[in-house]
Amino acid sequence: MAAPNTPEFQISFPTPHIAHVEITRPKKLNSFSDSMFTQLGQVFTYLSSPDNLDVRCIVLSGAGPNFTTGLDLQAGLQAAQQDSTKDLFRQNLETQKLIQRWQDDVSAIAKCTKPVIAVMHGYCFGLAIDIASACCIRIASSDAKLSIKEIDIGIAADIGTLSRFPKCVGNLGWVKELAYTGRTFGAAEAEKHGYVQYVEADKESALKKALAVAEQIAGKTPVGIRGVKDVLDYAVDNRVEDGLRYVKVWNGAALQTGDVKEAIMSGMEKRKARYEKL
Amino acid sequence: MAAPNTPEFQISFPTPHIAHVEITRPKKLNSFSDSMFTQLGQVFTYLSSPDNLDVRCIVLSGAGPNFTTGLDLQAGLQAAQQDSTKDLFRQNLETQKLIQRWQDDVSAIAKCTKPVIAVMHGYCFGLAIDIASACCIRIASSDAKLSIKEIDIGIAADIGTLSRFPKCVGNLGWVKELAYTGRTFGAAEAEKHGYVQYVEADKESALKKALAVAEQIAGKTPVGIRGVKDVLDYAVDNRVEDGLRYVKVWNGAALQTGDVKEAIMSGMEKRKARYEKL
Amino acid sequence: MAAPNTPEFQISFPTPHIAHVEITRPKKLNSFSDSMFTQLGQVFTYLSSPDNLDVRCIVLSGAGPNFTTGLDLQAGLQAAQQDSTKDLFRQNLETQKLIQRWQDDVSAIAKCTKPVIAVMHGYCFGLAIDIASACCIRIASSDAKLSIKEIDIGIAADIGTLSRFPKCVGNLGWVKELAYTGRTFGAAEAEKHGYVQYVEADKESALKKALAVAEQIAGKTPVGIRGVKDVLDYAVDNRVEDGLRYVKVWNGAALQTGDVKEAIMSGMEKRKARYEKL
Amino acid sequence: MAAPNTPEFQISFPTPHIAHVEITRPKKLNSFSDSMFTQLGQVFTYLSSPDNLDVRCIVLSGAGPNFTTGLDLQAGLQAAQQDSTKDLFRQNLETQKLIQRWQDDVSAIAKCTKPVIAVMHGYCFGLAIDIASACCIRIASSDAKLSIKEIDIGIAADIGTLSRFPKCVGNLGWVKELAYTGRTFGAAEAEKHGYVQYVEADKESALKKALAVAEQIAGKTPVGIRGVKDVLDYAVDNRVEDGLRYVKVWNGAALQTGDVKEAIMSGMEKRKARYEKL
Amino acid sequence: MAAPNTPEFQISFPTPHIAHVEITRPKKLNSFSDSMFTQLGQVFTYLSSPDNLDVRCIVLSGAGPNFTTGLDLQAGLQAAQQDSTKDLFRQNLETQKLIQRWQDDVSAIAKCTKPVIAVMHGYCFGLAIDIASACCIRIASSDAKLSIKEIDIGIAADIGTLSRFPKCVGNLGWVKELAYTGRTFGAAEAEKHGYVQYVEADKESALKKALAVAEQIAGKTPVGIRGVKDVLDYAVDNRVEDGLRYVKVWNGAALQTGDVKEAIMSGMEKRKARYEKL
Amino acid sequence: MAAPNTPEFQISFPTPHIAHVEITRPKKLNSFSDSMFTQLGQVFTYLSSPDNLDVRCIVLSGAGPNFTTGLDLQAGLQAAQQDSTKDLFRQNLETQKLIQRWQDDVSAIAKCTKPVIAVMHGYCFGLAIDIASACCIRIASSDAKLSIKEIDIGIAADIGTLSRFPKCVGNLGWVKELAYTGRTFGAAEAEKHGYVQYVEADKESALKKALAVAEQIAGKTPVGIRGVKDVLDYAVDNRVEDGLRYVKVWNGAALQTGDVKEAIMSGMEKRKARYEKL
Repeated sequence: MAAPNTPEFQISFPTPHIAHVEITRPKKLNSFSDSMFTQLGQVFTYLSSPDNLDVRCIVLSGAGPNFTTGLDLQAGLQAAQQDSTKDLFRQNLETQKLIQRWQDDVSAIAKCTKPVIAVMHGYCFGLAIDIASACCIRIASSDAKLSIKEIDIGIAADIGTLSRFPKCVGNLGWVKELAYTGRTFGAAEAEKHGYVQYVEADKESALKKALAVAEQIAGKTPVGIRGVKDVLDYAVDNRVEDGLRYVKVWNGAALQTGDVKEAIMSGMEKRKARYEKL
Repeated sequence: MAAPNTPEFQISFPTPHIAHVEITRPKKLNSFSDSMFTQLGQVFTYLSSPDNLDVRCIVLSGAGPNFTTGLDLQAGLQAAQQDSTKDLFRQNLETQKLIQRWQDDVSAIAKCTKPVIAVMHGYCFGLAIDIASACCIRIASSDAKLSIKEIDIGIAADIGTLSRFPKCVGNLGWVKELAYTGRTFGAAEAEKHGYVQYVEADKESALKKALAVAEQIAGKTPVGIRGVKDVLDYAVDNRVEDGLRYVKVWNGAALQTGDVKEAIMSGMEKRKARYEKL
Repeated sequence: MAAPNTPEFQISFPTPHIAHVEITRPKKLNSFSDSMFTQLGQVFTYLSSPDNLDVRCIVLSGAGPNFTTGLDLQAGLQAAQQDSTKDLFRQNLETQKLIQRWQDDVSAIAKCTKPVIAVMHGYCFGLAIDIASACCIRIASSDAKLSIKEIDIGIAADIGTLSRFPKCVGNLGWVKELAYTGRTFGAAEAEKHGYVQYVEADKESALKKALAVAEQIAGKTPVGIRGVKDVLDYAVDNRVEDGLRYVKVWNGAALQTGDVKEAIMSGMEKRKARYEKL
Repeated sequence: MAAPNTPEFQISFPTPHIAHVEITRPKKLNSFSDSMFTQLGQVFTYLSSPDNLDVRCIVLSGAGPNFTTGLDLQAGLQAAQQDSTKDLFRQNLETQKLIQRWQDDVSAIAKCTKPVIAVMHGYCFGLAIDIASACCIRIASSDAKLSIKEIDIGIAADIGTLSRFPKCVGNLGWVKELAYTGRTFGAAEAEKHGYVQYVEADKESALKKALAVAEQIAGKTPVGIRGVKDVLDYAVDNRVEDGLRYVKVWNGAALQTGDVKEAIMSGMEKRKARYEKL
Repeated sequence: MAAPNTPEFQISFPTPHIAHVEITRPKKLNSFSDSMFTQLGQVFTYLSSPDNLDVRCIVLSGAGPNFTTGLDLQAGLQAAQQDSTKDLFRQNLETQKLIQRWQDDVSAIAKCTKPVIAVMHGYCFGLAIDIASACCIRIASSDAKLSIKEIDIGIAADIGTLSRFPKCVGNLGWVKELAYTGRTFGAAEAEKHGYVQYVEADKESALKKALAVAEQIAGKTPVGIRGVKDVLDYAVDNRVEDGLRYVKVWNGAALQTGDVKEAIMSGMEKRKARYEKL
Repeated sequence: MAAPNTPEFQISFPTPHIAHVEITRPKKLNSFSDSMFTQLGQVFTYLSSPDNLDVRCIVLSGAGPNFTTGLDLQAGLQAAQQDSTKDLFRQNLETQKLIQRWQDDVSAIAKCTKPVIAVMHGYCFGLAIDIASACCIRIASSDAKLSIKEIDIGIAADIGTLSRFPKCVGNLGWVKELAYTGRTFGAAEAEKHGYVQYVEADKESALKKALAVAEQIAGKTPVGIRGVKDVLDYAVDNRVEDGLRYVKVWNGAALQTGDVKEAIMSGMEKRKARYEKL
């Protein structure tokens, strides 16, 4: 699979096992055009593909001071524009198709077989929350300004926030207040309620922290990491009994990997473990 | 639908879009008689009815220093009184019918199509937690004393607390400790664990804060707010994939409202948005 | 049912209503051999049996400075050892059988009809988290060092952690970071995120606190406590509507107990309540 | 609760334990006006109320040759009429409110604590299937003509058919064909696929058969019948494990009824059992 | 694991891969005493154990003309006898414990890793349906008389029938009629509605047919059969998407077995396949 | 979207609203190569795309006498071939990826927004059942020979059969017998158990029947048909209450289509309805 042509996303590899994805439309505060949704989906599908078996963890941030201000309103309106001569429900179905497409692009992050760490900095509005909630871990700079902004244009956030945000934090009242009011909240508040895991002084140190966590993850067996992600995502959406059954079937096979042996041996021999590509 | 006759509840309208519901039995610490359950259900059904399309947010508090001490034990025992000459399981079914009726009355808050903000002050015992957990947002005064009190009369709280409280906070160990011991906890502890969103110095400032949040919510499009409530409640009880599907179907239609245009235009023109009744 | 022969677990009764279970393999840091899983299951099955109707709450801690360092790697490898001449999937099924057996032993804690309080002290690695997550309440000493250690030997934790831990806390990002990195976290961090309910200065005071909470619980009606546990566990894994229905059916019967009367009367008469064995 | 005023429904009591509900608008082929939905709901709520504790089984049929041709199109259009000057989504919400109201009225049959037997005769179109699918048992006359007619007016049947019909029969392909084509099918075909339990020569014999089955049911303990209905409805919508847990909690109490003893004794003594009202 | 001592159950091995379990209390029409539940559970646990890896399919029938008339009423009443001086809810919990124990014994059939075929002959009342519904396949003799008999003693069948029977057949109306009336139905009716797969002239030919089907199953790879059972049971209780995910994880490992190769090769070479023990 | 290049699938349009898809590899009995899975997915994605808004129903059959004998074993083995020098679990994950890809291709039928009718004729083995179970309606010729063949090569059918087949029919015992034994069953047996809706004398008449049913469906409003499919698929996988809620939200919008008016008017005017493209 060829690397996708993504003018507004840049992929780099700070280390062989870590991919760094940047949203690169800083002049527009990294706001999303319709095409950028497609690019986003392509980037994460590509990083999950056989061309990138060596990648073990992904860091996502924005070029320039801001993560993203969300949907580029102009471009969004254009994409959402319906032919008003058409039957009302046919327009509705067109809108559903657009929502589905954008949802699928953002879900590519959640379905990526590798952990994704979001670096939240500057403006993190609307779509920024949809995207960050589809990531595994969130690290913020102290200047980050977050908002479930959709309500301000009269919309119930539909690209993932309302489904995923309440499952990232335990505090439903806080979620509701934010989703009803659209008020901006800072990194410290986000951290207090568990939405972000670390707050760093500025974007640079937040990115550095993200890379450090990514480095830790990249040092583990990719087989184990993949299992943890798959099993945890299943467990959160299912009952305890189901989670136990699923991990049993998964591990019955996963424990046959040679990585377990290598993990144990390298630990005993106090050397760095070496794992095959996944 | 005529305004219900509710001697122990008073509805006022501090602004055209906000309803303030007060429990008005302060001499009995706002404890609930059987009839008050019925009144509670009627109040919230009424506020959801076509007579109140203009209402966009509801604040619930208690008259006097206390929110409510919960079930009026005397009245509760009377309501729960069974004809002991009857067959045991027939008595059981009568009890189930009573529980169902009280659950339905409290669920009227959760099913209300408008956000409800609870102001928790003074004693907030037993039923107070059932009721507040059915609200969207909780704001406490610093003197609030909360307790899942039911265990002290030998009962597993059955009017909503055990179903809704653990979904309001993420901390299951804390929930279990409170439900097992019935110990009183204060506003600060409740806020720390995310059960209440704000703690204010006293009842007056808590009420003021609640009205301020309500004012913020009332300034948004009622179409958007209704969608956020409906979709979030669905999302919390279902899987991520289901939530995404549901919001897609909802928004396919909701985006056809004129409110989105008004929200965007008023934002651009820096004027207050004007929305029709819902 | 005779008390099980459990050389590495010791049961004592600090008060008639409280059982204290200790893991007693301190020389090996209370790490678990295969046989200890079986013993663990037997201990909690025994404490749920008719021989122990008087027991109302259970406290679990480790002998010596540590709770447990988890699986005894040597013993674990031996138990997990597969006959490599056998067909691959047959080996897989053998592994599944072992996982199932260990899961069942740990689930005996979750299924125990009485609340279990874990005292987490010293090393609490790997299996320690599986076990503590199956308990109702967690109390830590300030020296506790916790880790979802399994990833360090290349494994997705499969004895309960990945299913239960995310349901104990609300913070999914934190859970993922810990499960991906296996990093050690302290009592304070665990308390901040709601995994432990209290942090005490040292093991002795943590144990003392656990016994004090147990004492509180033991003072309530065993009928009520049992209902709270059963109904809460059901509610967490199900929808709000389902939880309401289930507690209605449960309480229709549970309210027929004489304990409610005794609870109310003793409260009025300001005397200690006396409840029959459960 | 007073008997509701239901001009288009007539309740009679062929035996003390059986209620016979008739739809009595034969001149309009028993088609439903908006008011008739309300009446339908009231009838079944009334038959579940304390005024009718003696009723143990309910038979539902239509006056004259037809069960019902479904929604009275004229009346339906009127009820569904929207104020076209209103915002599109506001009209949508009004429609949702109407659907909800009609669903609730039909669900009153499903929620009725007593078994309901539908007698399907003559035209059974559209709403007829929504209603009959909410009943427990269906008995048809050989002249019955059934159709999921809604598709012919461009609608996905929304008052219960699409949710309940596929759970009444096991044959999903048949359900889809009927729902896509709206084709009329006869009693024999309905019986072959398990939608109706008995086919009788004409309406009179179908009604007679329904009363005979009702008589059988009325001869059982009302406690047992109620349990079977409640537990079966739960089981069908849930997993096997959940069904087992639910019936265990239900029967722990239900077996305390005196009816079990009376059932066994009357069986031994070969006499008719006598049960108290439920 | 030693063969369990089961005076009222006899295990034989008509071929090395097939176990035939007989209920051997013909003088009492194979009705079940309390001890027989325990024996039943032990038999199926034993047949799943490492001592019986060679067993690939199990046939269950009754000694003498009848399968079983269900619970031995005398013995049942004795087991269910409660100490009436005890608190009501405590008695209830004792009853729940008994139900749970009996449910677990019958569930041992459903959880058995090998397909179980029930031969239904003569009286198949009450518990007979609980047991047969936990089997995979049901084959009846033409004289079989089935009944969900529990309603005749005032009970909602609680050992599995209400949870499993509706999932064995697609016809909910038929299930309800049978469960409400307890009427006896024959083999032909059971076959028509899909509850039994084959009807044979008499018990001998039914048993012969069961052994023939068992022989067919025993000729397949045990790895494949085990997967089919595990995956199908999961699929029936879950959504299509979940079923697809589960079988993917299962087969990722299961396809690594050597049996697939042997199955294909033996097919090409037109010889009997030889598979290792499972 | 350009018509996909699918050498082994041919799309024709017998009428403007009906697409006929043929599997065109008759020399190999329409067995599937790896590439054919991809083509299958592309065909149904294409028929759902804006290029085919006029298509309202799809018929699927095989060129020549057979539907399909399933996976081309040679091609299948090649695709499933793993690099045996790789780590065992890495091979497993590769296999999972292949299964997922094939599942996705077959699920394209189920996700197609238009009803799909399978014509089953001649050999319908293995994959044929996976595919036909993803269709809405199945019509067979009397010579059709069906088999859940996978067990004969030692595999639990994983491309959809085990998830979808039991939801197409109500008879779980029959499903299990077929899945365990892999025995061939004919059209009549399939019809008796509800798996196929019609049996016709030969392939030509089966195809003709399928086109006739498709014609009926194509005469309905596409808006209504789409709603029925979406809502029914949701209902089958969810609870009654959820289905009611979902259809309410769906229809709140769908009833705003002009098609309802056209459907009613054309009915009254006894003329053919004319609907816009969907």
